[in-house]
Parts: sequence; structure tokens; C-alpha cells
Amino acid sequence: MAKELTPRSENYSQWYNDLVVKADLAENSAVRGCMVIKPYGYAIWEKIQRQLDQMFKDTGHVNAYFPLFIPKSFLSKEADHVEGFAKECAVVTHYRLKKNPDGSGVIVDPAAKLEEELIVRPTSETIIWSTYKNWIHSYRDLPILCNQWANVVRWEMRTRLFLRTAEFLWQEGHTAHATKEEAEEEAVKMLNIYADFAENFMAIPVLKGVKSAKERFAGAVETYCIEALMQDGKALQAGTSHFLGQNFAKAFDVTFMNKDNKQELVWATSWGVSTRLMGALIMSHSDDDGLILPPNLVPYQVVIVPIYKSDEQLKDIDAKVDTIVANLKSLGVSVKYDNTDNKRPGFKFAEYELKGVPVRLAIGARDLENNTVEVFRRDTKEKETRSLDGIEQYVKDLMSDIQSNIYKKAFDYRSSVTREVNTYDEFKEEIEKGGFLLCHWDGTTETEEKIKEETKATIRCIPLEGDKTPGKCMVTGMPSKQRVVFARSY
Amino acid sequence: MAKELTPRSENYSQWYNDLVVKADLAENSAVRGCMVIKPYGYAIWEKIQRQLDQMFKDTGHVNAYFPLFIPKSFLSKEADHVEGFAKECAVVTHYRLKKNPDGSGVIVDPAAKLEEELIVRPTSETIIWSTYKNWIHSYRDLPILCNQWANVVRWEMRTRLFLRTAEFLWQEGHTAHATKEEAEEEAVKMLNIYADFAENFMAIPVLKGVKSAKERFAGAVETYCIEALMQDGKALQAGTSHFLGQNFAKAFDVTFMNKDNKQELVWATSWGVSTRLMGALIMSHSDDDGLILPPNLVPYQVVIVPIYKSDEQLKDIDAKVDTIVANLKSLGVSVKYDNTDNKRPGFKFAEYELKGVPVRLAIGARDLENNTVEVFRRDTKEKETRSLDGIEQYVKDLMSDIQSNIYKKAFDYRSSVTREVNTYDEFKEEIEKGGFLLCHWDGTTETEEKIKEETKATIRCIPLEGDKTPGKCMVTGMPSKQRVVFARSY
Repeated sequence: MAKELTPRSENYSQWYNDLVVKADLAENSAVRGCMVIKPYGYAIWEKIQRQLDQMFKDTGHVNAYFPLFIPKSFLSKEADHVEGFAKECAVVTHYRLKKNPDGSGVIVDPAAKLEEELIVRPTSETIIWSTYKNWIHSYRDLPILCNQWANVVRWEMRTRLFLRTAEFLWQEGHTAHATKEEAEEEAVKMLNIYADFAENFMAIPVLKGVKSAKERFAGAVETYCIEALMQDGKALQAGTSHFLGQNFAKAFDVTFMNKDNKQELVWATSWGVSTRLMGALIMSHSDDDGLILPPNLVPYQVVIVPIYKSDEQLKDIDAKVDTIVANLKSLGVSVKYDNTDNKRPGFKFAEYELKGVPVRLAIGARDLENNTVEVFRRDTKEKETRSLDGIEQYVKDLMSDIQSNIYKKAFDYRSSVTREVNTYDEFKEEIEKGGFLLCHWDGTTETEEKIKEETKATIRCIPLEGDKTPGKCMVTGMPSKQRVVFARSY
Repeated sequence: MAKELTPRSENYSQWYNDLVVKADLAENSAVRGCMVIKPYGYAIWEKIQRQLDQMFKDTGHVNAYFPLFIPKSFLSKEADHVEGFAKECAVVTHYRLKKNPDGSGVIVDPAAKLEEELIVRPTSETIIWSTYKNWIHSYRDLPILCNQWANVVRWEMRTRLFLRTAEFLWQEGHTAHATKEEAEEEAVKMLNIYADFAENFMAIPVLKGVKSAKERFAGAVETYCIEALMQDGKALQAGTSHFLGQNFAKAFDVTFMNKDNKQELVWATSWGVSTRLMGALIMSHSDDDGLILPPNLVPYQVVIVPIYKSDEQLKDIDAKVDTIVANLKSLGVSVKYDNTDNKRPGFKFAEYELKGVPVRLAIGARDLENNTVEVFRRDTKEKETRSLDGIEQYVKDLMSDIQSNIYKKAFDYRSSVTREVNTYDEFKEEIEKGGFLLCHWDGTTETEEKIKEETKATIRCIPLEGDKTPGKCMVTGMPSKQRVVFARSY
């Protein structure tokens, strides 16, 4: 076939890049670190957006939009926050170009220098909390449950399509609450929505946990996260939800009159997922022939390819397929009929396998005679010839089958590479094999940093669920409250 | 009532600003020229997006996403384009901040200067055509029909919420075609979609036309536009669709192999509408009491307010309303039941009038006894008491009634202030009264500029439909091909 991928066993990282580009998901642009999301990739992102947006709205959230730019001084108002974000940001310093006096193109007009530089938002806590100050006066104004879909920029030096790009698309929720309890509840609620979405739509099993102090969001009191495991044994942080305490309320002086007529600082959360999810989706399920996508998020679930030798045959097949397409649509199954005549069936087969279409139906002249159809499912690569009677319901049922099958496969893989490790020597050996290692840790940043330096492994999370038995740190022997999850990560 | 607006007759411009802010649509942010779109305003924008997006997809377009940043040198590649956009753009010159050595906040790190400055996109023709170069090789790769929903930045000096902001949200379609005819057809097709959307969803009558050379998009061969008329007699350009010829293909060297095996330059269009439509929507229909919104784009079409003196009464009303809400929803009518107990009914009434909810139902204890309800429609301010029997269907029918009524009102107003003017003296008098003036013009930029300088009126468009009788220019007496539309504009 025309578009061969580097096999995963040979070079996993190259396989990923090949796949993203050859399946028409995204490509690098002329601007360093920024990607172009191509129509097929964007169609998947739109499905992700629609579903998450609905889940946010169903839990009382509303969308809004805040400025792209953040005044430089705003970033400095929260001490940890500026530490985390000042190092890699795009800075706007001027607002005009002018003709180059030497006649070649345009240059920055030095007369158009901004009094205060503007930062292209790397995240919006500061600009949003400066706005909330005007929205919040009394407990009656709370809670505020806003989300925004936006682009953000973090000047990453080493970028990879979807996984780490200078500009990326995301949603960021920013909520304001009257009490600590309510804000904490919100942070956990959103964590659960992300986990629900990852497992039931992306078909990716995730661990729910909290980050260690070192890995916490810059400005957060507690960072909740979902962690996924890719096929190469590396972890990927798929979403975070932060309990921000009163840090941003303090920084921007946002107080409210409580029911007892006293001024109090407001409590906050923020939570986000990004186009990074696309990377997780691709890496969790796909194989050396291309994408494997969950039916719940795929641009179209079924492709139908006609096999014919004459226009006459094609006409007969078209007529039959029209009915199948209509029936599938009425069952809520999305379908594409590809009867273009500039590619041979074998080429089309390979193309739709590459693009991860869950089910392919192939119908030829003989099938019409026999009232049959060839059904191919992408996840297992099983092929069977079936009667056309009831084919639509069969295909619809296949969708939930495929959805759970690819989840199960990812779940079984994760289980197979998740294990307890008790000594640091064992850890050093095991970490080379990848996967999640459950280990006792003494809770100090020193130990965490030593492990990272020596093994490149980080604490992915302190799990919220599962075994909570205390023990002794594998490195220092000091007391450990519970096992935590280590891995190398994206 | 708490939130009084400046009456239109007193100060139309102040009325508009009051309304945008008090109806919770948008507000100015801490960043000069950038607005915050508040949840109620954003909910309307989402309706606009959903509908347009569907119309684009129904006509074969797909969404994609291109970088926020444009290398400075790209802007210069198309000579007219850089003239149009270099004067007002945000320029990124650095990619890092560092601690101020004096300890106060952060400063731009001079060591992190970009080799080539990046422009925050004011529009994306250049970055997109540099990308299309790699996508297009043969006629088989054409047409490309991409759209993107994005934010753009134009450094406007005088800004107004929605109408003119430094950052705004929009969609920009960018298509590539094998022939001139096909590209021209696409530009007109999108113009018609915009007109259809304006008239049938926004309830705003629009004139379809082409721009004069002077008012054309920088880089276009022909700019098609829809022009609307606001209640103060000023015009507002509500959408544009550009036939770009081969200008951007030339600038970025984008050629394709045609069916005769010859290399040809690709033909292009681009088309866009923005959050400026929100300004048009607000100004077309609203009155001194607040917004009047078309049912087809309103966040919720009906609000129900209970009138009660005791919890007992409220409980009975709640039960009755639950059924009405369910019935309305099943008829596809969106509805909000506001039984919050911290505001009096009169306050709620004013609030929902301000927010432009098309229909309000008020139900009290006596209504329950009599099986009646008070129905108030926002557009005409008519109030009537009706039987609850069949109220849901009645309300549903009211929606299409209101939708056409506000369109008709806007249409009649426009007709009343659209007139032919034949001499320049008359023109100078009439232009003070506002409205569309249909005049003969000699087709020269000189005359157009003279008129603008002396009267502040511009040619809004050369209409595609209507009277095409030739005549003589009202200023110079030179031949005129047809009357064109003059107005003062936003």
C-alpha cells in the first residue's frame, strides 16, 4: 500500500509521527512548534468537544470567552503561577509594522511599542480572576461556573504533534465558590467527568489521583488528574482539575459578602483538557496498519465500498447501498459510501484502515446475487460474509461491541504492565520495561527528585482508589502513607 | 427598575453600550480593546455558530485549524494584503520572561528574541496558502473547502463592544479551486448562505452586493458583501465573501497539474462573519427596555415566572409548570422556569425583558383555579390571559410569528429609509437623515473619496439585485452603470 507506517516495534515514536501525518490528522506548520490540524483530525476533535461540552452543560456550566492577551503584570500577581508560566510564553511588544526603508518587506515599527507587554495566554486564571472581581460581590453571585474553549500558547522547545505544541486548543473551566467544601467538590466532580469521558468515549482506562507537590499546577493547592498508559508503556496525563484554594482570589482581591454579612475571599477551581487527548486517543489503540478509533468519537463509523467491473454493476450496487445507508442513519449509525472511481477497492480498504473506520462493508455484484455483504471490523481485523437481511442492526450492535472491545484491550494491557515494586534496585530494573509501578514513597520532594534524576520516572499520581496500606519508602525506608504510581511519561 | 438604559432617542450609541453591558452580553476587559464575552452573550454566539456550521457542512465544507501566528515575511508576500493588514497588528517579538533583577515582577528576557517576528493572525490567507502549497498537486486534490472557527486580532484604535474590538471571534472559510468559474461560484454561494442566515435566523434584511475597488478586501479581486441597516440609519457590513483570483496562489506558488497535464495556478475564495454579527443582532431589533431577539437564535425562547404568596401556592404552581415545561420541550421549544425566591416577579419581568426572551408566561394561584396563564410577547409587548389548554402549541406558533414579525419590522424600517437621490446637494441633505441612498456614481475612486470626505458616507455596495438602469453620476455627471448604495456606516 502507498502509505506504510514504521512498525511500532521498530520505532514507536516514528510510528506515531507517521500515523498522525499519513492518516491526515495534523502536520507541522511553517511556524515553529505550531501545528495545522487537518480536517480528519479536526473532525475527531469536534466530536470530543461536542461530548465534553454537553457533559459540562449537563452539570450546570456555561461557556464564556476571555481575552487572548494577559498584561505582563497580571502574571506576577500569584507567585507560584508566574514561576510556572513566565519561562515559556509568547510576548507581544508592538502593535504595528511599517515598510522597511530599504524597500524589502515590512519591519516592526519602533514607534508602536506597547507601554506594558502582553502575554499570549498560557492559561487564563489571571485574566479571569481579574474579571471575576467585578462579577462577585455577594454570596448570591456564587457559584460562577464558566468554561471557555480556546487556544493557548506555551513556548515549548521540543514539540510533537498533539502531544506538545507551542499553540494548542483546549477548554478551561474556571469556577468560583463561597466555601472550600463546594470548591473541592467541584474539582472532584470535574475529575470524574474527565474519567467518565476518557473511559466511555475514548475507550481509555485512566487512574484517578492527585499530583505530588512537585507536579502540582503552578498556583494550585491540590491538582487532581487522570493518567493513561500508552502502548509503549509510557504514561500520559490526560486531564487535570485543580483546587486553587483562595490563591487567585487573594492575588486579585476577590471577596464576597457572606450570609453573615462578612467579607470573605472566594474559593476557586480550574480544570482543563486539550488537543493532547488526540495524542492519547491515537496511541492507546492504533496498530501498524493505522488508526483504531472508538465508534463513539469517530467521524464516521462505517464505510461502504462497492466492488464492480462495469457501470451497470455499480448502478445496481448504488441502488442497494442507498437503502442500507438510509437504514443505518435511521439507527443513528454514521456512514460514508465511497463510490468514487479514481481508486481501486484495495487502495480504499487500506486508506480506511489507516483512518481507523470501525467497520467496512464491501459489496460486489456477486453479493447482490447472493444477498450478502463482506463485513470487516477494524479492531480485530476479522472479516466475514453475512446476509444483507438485518445487516443494519448487526452493524449497529457491532459498534458497542467494538467500543467495549478496544476499552478492554487497553485495560488488559494496562493491567499486564501495572505491578507493585518494593525495592529501589528492582525499581531501576522494572522501570526500563515501562508500565505503572506501584511503590512506597516517603512523601518528600527530595526523594521524588532523586528518583527522577536517576531513572527518569516521575510520580504520575497518588491514587484516589485502590490499596491504601501504609509501608516504607523504597528509597529511604521512611514511612509511606500508601503506594503511589511511578512511570516514565509523555 | 434597577437597570435603566439610556433611551435611543437621547443617545443611540450610549443606549447600545448600556444594553450590551446590562443585558450581560459583554464587557470591556483589562486589556485595551479586548472584550469579555459573558455567558448570556456567548450562548447567543454559540447558536450562531451551530447554525452557520451546519449550513457550511451541508454545502460540503469541513473544519480545520491553522496556527495563530503568521511569520512576518508571509504578510509581505501579497502586496495589497500587507498594505491592508500591517498597520494594525499584534507583534510577538520574544518568547520568554525573566525575573526583574530589581526584584519587582518580571521583564522580557532580551536573550529570548525571535529571529523573525510573529504576527497574531489578523486573517489567515497567508498561513493557509503556505499550507495549501503542500496539499495541492493535481486537479484530483481540488477543490479544498476548509473553514476555521478562530480568534483574530486587529489593533483597532477606537473600539466598541462586538462592533470593533482588537480581538474578535469569527469563522473564515478558505477554498481552493481548479477553475475561475468554480471559485466565483463558491464566493457567491457563501454570500447567499450568509444572506439566508441573516434573514431567516437573525431576522435582519440584507442587501447583497459587491464592494467598490476602494472598499475591497486587501488581496481580493472581488468582494461580495451583505449590508444591513441599523435602527439609527447607519449601515453595518454583516459578512463578506471574497473571490481572490490567483493572487494568493501566485504569492505562495501554489500550482496544480490540470487534466491536460499542465501546471496552473490555483483559484481561491475566502469568506467570513464575526462576533460583529452580535452587534448587528442587538441594534436591529432591540428597544429602550432591552434586547429583542429572534426566537431562532435566543438562548431560551420562553421564561415562566410563578406568582405566589406562600410555599403551598408555589408547590402547586411548580407541579403545573413541570408539565408545561415538558410539553414545550417535546415541541422543540426551549424554556426556563424561574422559581428562584430571591427576586420579586416585577424584577424578574424586567430582567427577562432586558434579556430579550421572546415569550414570558406568568402563572399565579388564581390562574391555577381558572386554568389560565398570562402570556407576554417581548416584540410587541402585548399581554393576554389565555386558557392553559393547548398553551404549548400556542407558544410554539408564537415563535414563528415573532420571528417573522421582527423581520418584517426591520424590513419595513429599512424600506422607509431607502430612497433614490439624484443630485449631490440633495445627497448632502439626505445623508444627515441616515438610511440607504441609491445614487448614480461614475465608478471612480476619486469621486468616491470626495463624497466620503465631504459627507462621511461610503459606498456600501453595488447591489446585485434590483434596478440596473444606467444614469449619470450625481457628482460629476459622468456615465453610471447602475445606482449604488451609499450610507454612513459602523
